[in-house]
Amino acid sequence: MFIALDGGDGAGKGVQIEFLKRWLAERGLDFVFVRDPGDTPLGDIIRSLLLKNSAIDICPLAEAALFMASRAQLVQEIIEPALETGKVVLVDRYLLSTVVYQGYANDATEEEIATLWRIGTVFTKGILPDVTFILDCPSEVCNERLSRDRDRIEARGIKFHSKVAQGYRQAAQTWNQYARGEVFVIDATLTPQEVFNKIKAILESRVP
Amino acid sequence: MFIALDGGDGAGKGVQIEFLKRWLAERGLDFVFVRDPGDTPLGDIIRSLLLKNSAIDICPLAEAALFMASRAQLVQEIIEPALETGKVVLVDRYLLSTVVYQGYANDATEEEIATLWRIGTVFTKGILPDVTFILDCPSEVCNERLSRDRDRIEARGIKFHSKVAQGYRQAAQTWNQYARGEVFVIDATLTPQEVFNKIKAILESRVP
Repeated sequence: MFIALDGGDGAGKGVQIEFLKRWLAERGLDFVFVRDPGDTPLGDIIRSLLLKNSAIDICPLAEAALFMASRAQLVQEIIEPALETGKVVLVDRYLLSTVVYQGYANDATEEEIATLWRIGTVFTKGILPDVTFILDCPSEVCNERLSRDRDRIEARGIKFHSKVAQGYRQAAQTWNQYARGEVFVIDATLTPQEVFNKIKAILESRVP
Repeated sequence: MFIALDGGDGAGKGVQIEFLKRWLAERGLDFVFVRDPGDTPLGDIIRSLLLKNSAIDICPLAEAALFMASRAQLVQEIIEPALETGKVVLVDRYLLSTVVYQGYANDATEEEIATLWRIGTVFTKGILPDVTFILDCPSEVCNERLSRDRDRIEARGIKFHSKVAQGYRQAAQTWNQYARGEVFVIDATLTPQEVFNKIKAILESRVP
């Protein structure tokens, strides 16, 4: 069982991840949590390059490739072995984020979106989530929730983040064309507890 | 005009690059030389990650993605602008190296080789060399020429490098299926001057 939580910056992923971890633990499930990018020695270097070092110019294609590199290593070192031993895997962001941030939010054409999904499937060896939750939140609401201390991508401004929010919705609509597993768009303007109740209701019938 | 020099470690690329630079300058051609990976601020970080830091585990897919990231930035910052202003571009390695080192030398299937070419074409925005020279050299000869102070990839041992040499030959044979432009396999066991004479004879009718 492979669960992904995704959505724009400020949509409230962090709180839901904490709820989810507690819920999985309470059910006595053996689970692994990782955030993408990151959580391997290579991934941590790439994460810091992508999110912290704003002095270095990274073009959209290079950015996409760096996310792919970090994710390939994460699949190899952690996700694939965990799934093979029957563990539940919970990820904070995954391939969908690359499609949205480096694709939709960069005004990619439908053909480029298809290419990102296809390339991303290669670099993950086809290991894609069974269930993906998209926390759907208008960029103005997200923007108010974000702290002032923003990383390289969070700092991109309201116009970019509004394309991100719109991109998630478009990705959900074309899901079966490119991705695998189920996708659920959750209204993230609700209270954290209300959001989690929706997530829980969906997971209860799917998790052992 | 976009010229690439490629081949196994120890095949003698360095000397030929020097010959080529001098020859291009003598003809009064405005040219740009770059090595791949590297030669942008992002590329230099990735190059050092790929070649120097042997303590960090990098799986073959992540390695391929990192080469793609460095190359995407190189195309964006240097190669594309240079070609657009009519300059000759000379590169030390390019997409072919990724196909050979991360593909053939990792026992990739023909389908995976095709995928590497296809993904590499996306990350280079389809900007591929007009002429590619492969310095063809048996791995035993290459091995003797290499210094003891080897980088992360040079240090992989004779078996890997023998697959590299074989991979270059296979790539040359299937060139028109995947790549663009012309490819020439040059016997690199000849003296450096003899090798260069062959390269020069080919370029003389092609370079303005």
